[in-house]
Amino acid sequence: MKNSLGREIPDELLKDGIEVYQGAEYRKDYVYTKAAPTVKANISSGESKLVDTIKEAIEKVGLKDGMTISFHHHLRNGDYVCAEVMEVIHEMGIKDLFVCASSLGKAHANMVPMIEDGTITGISSSGVRDEIGEALSAGKLKNPAWIRSHGGRVRAIETGQVKIDVAFIAASSSDVIGNASGKGGKNDCGVLSYADVDAKYADKVIVITDTIKETPNFPAPIESVDVDYVVKVDEIGDPSKIASGAIRMTNDVRELKMAEYCAKVVASTEWFKEDFTFQTGAGGASLAVTRFLKKYMDEKNIKMGWGLGGITEPMVNLLREGYIKKLIDDQAFDVASVKSAYDDPKHFEISCSQYANPMNKGAFVNYLDYVILGCLEIDTDFNVNVVQGSDGKIQGAPGGHPDTAQGANCTIIVAPLIRSRLATVRRSLTSITTPGETIDVLVTDYGVCVNPNRKDILEQLEKTDLPLKTIDELAEIAESIVGVADPIEFEDKVVALVEYRDGTIIDVIKKPKYL
Amino acid sequence: MKNSLGREIPDELLKDGIEVYQGAEYRKDYVYTKAAPTVKANISSGESKLVDTIKEAIEKVGLKDGMTISFHHHLRNGDYVCAEVMEVIHEMGIKDLFVCASSLGKAHANMVPMIEDGTITGISSSGVRDEIGEALSAGKLKNPAWIRSHGGRVRAIETGQVKIDVAFIAASSSDVIGNASGKGGKNDCGVLSYADVDAKYADKVIVITDTIKETPNFPAPIESVDVDYVVKVDEIGDPSKIASGAIRMTNDVRELKMAEYCAKVVASTEWFKEDFTFQTGAGGASLAVTRFLKKYMDEKNIKMGWGLGGITEPMVNLLREGYIKKLIDDQAFDVASVKSAYDDPKHFEISCSQYANPMNKGAFVNYLDYVILGCLEIDTDFNVNVVQGSDGKIQGAPGGHPDTAQGANCTIIVAPLIRSRLATVRRSLTSITTPGETIDVLVTDYGVCVNPNRKDILEQLEKTDLPLKTIDELAEIAESIVGVADPIEFEDKVVALVEYRDGTIIDVIKKPKYL
Repeated sequence: MKNSLGREIPDELLKDGIEVYQGAEYRKDYVYTKAAPTVKANISSGESKLVDTIKEAIEKVGLKDGMTISFHHHLRNGDYVCAEVMEVIHEMGIKDLFVCASSLGKAHANMVPMIEDGTITGISSSGVRDEIGEALSAGKLKNPAWIRSHGGRVRAIETGQVKIDVAFIAASSSDVIGNASGKGGKNDCGVLSYADVDAKYADKVIVITDTIKETPNFPAPIESVDVDYVVKVDEIGDPSKIASGAIRMTNDVRELKMAEYCAKVVASTEWFKEDFTFQTGAGGASLAVTRFLKKYMDEKNIKMGWGLGGITEPMVNLLREGYIKKLIDDQAFDVASVKSAYDDPKHFEISCSQYANPMNKGAFVNYLDYVILGCLEIDTDFNVNVVQGSDGKIQGAPGGHPDTAQGANCTIIVAPLIRSRLATVRRSLTSITTPGETIDVLVTDYGVCVNPNRKDILEQLEKTDLPLKTIDELAEIAESIVGVADPIEFEDKVVALVEYRDGTIIDVIKKPKYL
Repeated sequence: MKNSLGREIPDELLKDGIEVYQGAEYRKDYVYTKAAPTVKANISSGESKLVDTIKEAIEKVGLKDGMTISFHHHLRNGDYVCAEVMEVIHEMGIKDLFVCASSLGKAHANMVPMIEDGTITGISSSGVRDEIGEALSAGKLKNPAWIRSHGGRVRAIETGQVKIDVAFIAASSSDVIGNASGKGGKNDCGVLSYADVDAKYADKVIVITDTIKETPNFPAPIESVDVDYVVKVDEIGDPSKIASGAIRMTNDVRELKMAEYCAKVVASTEWFKEDFTFQTGAGGASLAVTRFLKKYMDEKNIKMGWGLGGITEPMVNLLREGYIKKLIDDQAFDVASVKSAYDDPKHFEISCSQYANPMNKGAFVNYLDYVILGCLEIDTDFNVNVVQGSDGKIQGAPGGHPDTAQGANCTIIVAPLIRSRLATVRRSLTSITTPGETIDVLVTDYGVCVNPNRKDILEQLEKTDLPLKTIDELAEIAESIVGVADPIEFEDKVVALVEYRDGTIIDVIKKPKYL
């Protein structure tokens, strides 16, 4: 069956009430009863919840074949906990697990043999990068993986679509009864926003930390009332590897040019006024925008009300310098952000539900004026792909892309027109992650283009000296330089479902024939 | 049917799975699936949630006859919000409401005519004092009221026994999207601990504040993702009336003597060591204990790890002076505590579930070493009544009494042997609030007595010069002075159920014949 963007979704995947994508506002005003965990009351025990090993905790919670387990990725490429837990599970011979991770990447390469031998048969994740992306692309996982945005993951858990049996929560610090935090340990990750929903909706919750603090370890985003066991390990990870891969500061002339265009788009539109709200991604150009924004804020003598995200060092610097009043943080993307989350009273941790869940009573993404995002590919209907490489392999992550794009007043995509002889602006996408109706402006090194459904923004940008183009003009320029790439050939086997944040299927990813 | 304490519970009240009390540990390891609210998703709206009037908010949430509404009592006798909301509801002619309040008292006298005219037909509350206690005692409420401890209320809501349709949350400050707090307003109440479960489990949530702050109003114990509407009123209450009634500092010689005994009990038992944990009630003698404790802490050169509660000025002073490392606060009992909750970084707000819910994975009451509590009556099995006066009228409140009594290693009741020619220590109680098996020591002005089930404590106190007595000796002394009071005569009509924290019925309260 085709969804409203014309993508074919195989009927056999549309079971258990799953529907195809039918527009970004299709589930507006959706009414539902939240899911809830099954828990065991602790009426009076004042015992410590500390157990000696991960294995002992797994035995105590009764993890069995066919269950769903969960992890968060605040330690990103420096995470040791997920790999360690999976190693123990593998040794214990538990099979057929569904892994509901907030994201997976380089740190989780040890899952590949477990995917191959049936220890792991299902995956839900935002990112599926590196070795694990390769394995999924090659169709090694028994069932198609679910690619979910950060908000979409919270929605899937809160609506009961995903029921977590056991949540494993890496924590930078915890007391012996489970009040846990991303701060105050020997390996801080800053915040534990993604783990909030796991702690509240999983039947069993195991906190894994390398730093035991005195009770109460407050403030504690993970509350002891939700925690069954606490395990002390030597090291939960290497925070120096939190900032890597996607996150970097640029000196690239092309990226700096795009960043300047982008800052001018922001500064030339109506929401750029005192207390405007803002989020930027972690790509080179997106990050660079924050530098250029400062100039415009000085000129107009305004401050940002709050910055959201995905916090990075440039945002932290703007906070310190007084350009931003408050930072609202659901992920610390580098060491500077981790530190700021710990010691700046204007830097606040929120849960991922507060950040981006489309099914609560209003996430912070809804209140964004601007979000600056990257893309791998964008089509002439402004649909964006941030998950699948033009080579057909799963390599990216929706992250908060579809969430912020829908929420913000002005969603700006920044991307070079051409990367490595491949056009970014294309007639059709390898797969769709974020629907074009939620994308407002595209900034490239060859010009800036406004979604025709945003005449208000176009009128405002026409008053500037920005090099405005139509999306067709940009596509033609790209084609004139690199031609049209031969389409990748795919087998029929679906290796991943790309879920829109509201739970509908926006696209599927098939196995490339060459893999 | 008789419960395990020999109290007769009429069979017709034992419906919908309600059981009689069968021992404090009867529901140990109880496994259940939590309740959950039915909510409407806000996928993308970034609108303010501010509405002009309470009436408009009530209309928007669709409050109807027969629904359940909720209130918290952090503003205590200074609360304007509950009365104002009820006035509006009354004018709108909505009937047959069940009011699930954390506590009711002097500020809610305007409910009496609404009880009489059928606007309110059911009540769940901890305290039912003053005019409203009088009305309930006289049998004016259509259905028997539920008297619940603070932990018991959270349990009732989290297990789904009580389903809140609309929660009204008075907040000292809020932003226009509902991030609400007991701090930072013109009328601060300190914490919003009781309202946490309301916000998370009610279908509809209305925040009522007199102070609108910039978004985000962080830190916010009530999160905007749970809030439907925000109403701005002129004044939510008068915080100077937070401390009143039950809470007072004593100069009474008899109370000071009991406080000295009590402090010695604490200082002479095994848990009095570095990092001991402690809660004291708000009664005169209970409060005074904290003064005497200081001396013993100095002598032994130890500090309290954390103090819990129900925070009062003496505890705040000990925190400031360095005798207590951290305060864990679910209710600010006076202006000093409100202020400390706002500006002392060692003073932490928790939810009432974290405080006392018997059905989560371990509330803070479970980790108490000592709790000092008051009582109206205590029988020779150490069962305690803190709800019903010896005149048969409902006048008190279980509060955290049954919760802390069960959780603490050493539960100490402090009460004068005789009050106004009535014996406190009696052969039988007017009604039971807290079971004797959870009470360890009774301190009176005529001597100190240890529950025979706590031989460990008795052995430790025998090494002191405390005037140890048996409970029978104390009962005899009381009888020798004031005789045995004629029993109050009651009608058959049950006006209130006294629920134990685990949800079983520990007693019922009947209508006194003379009312």
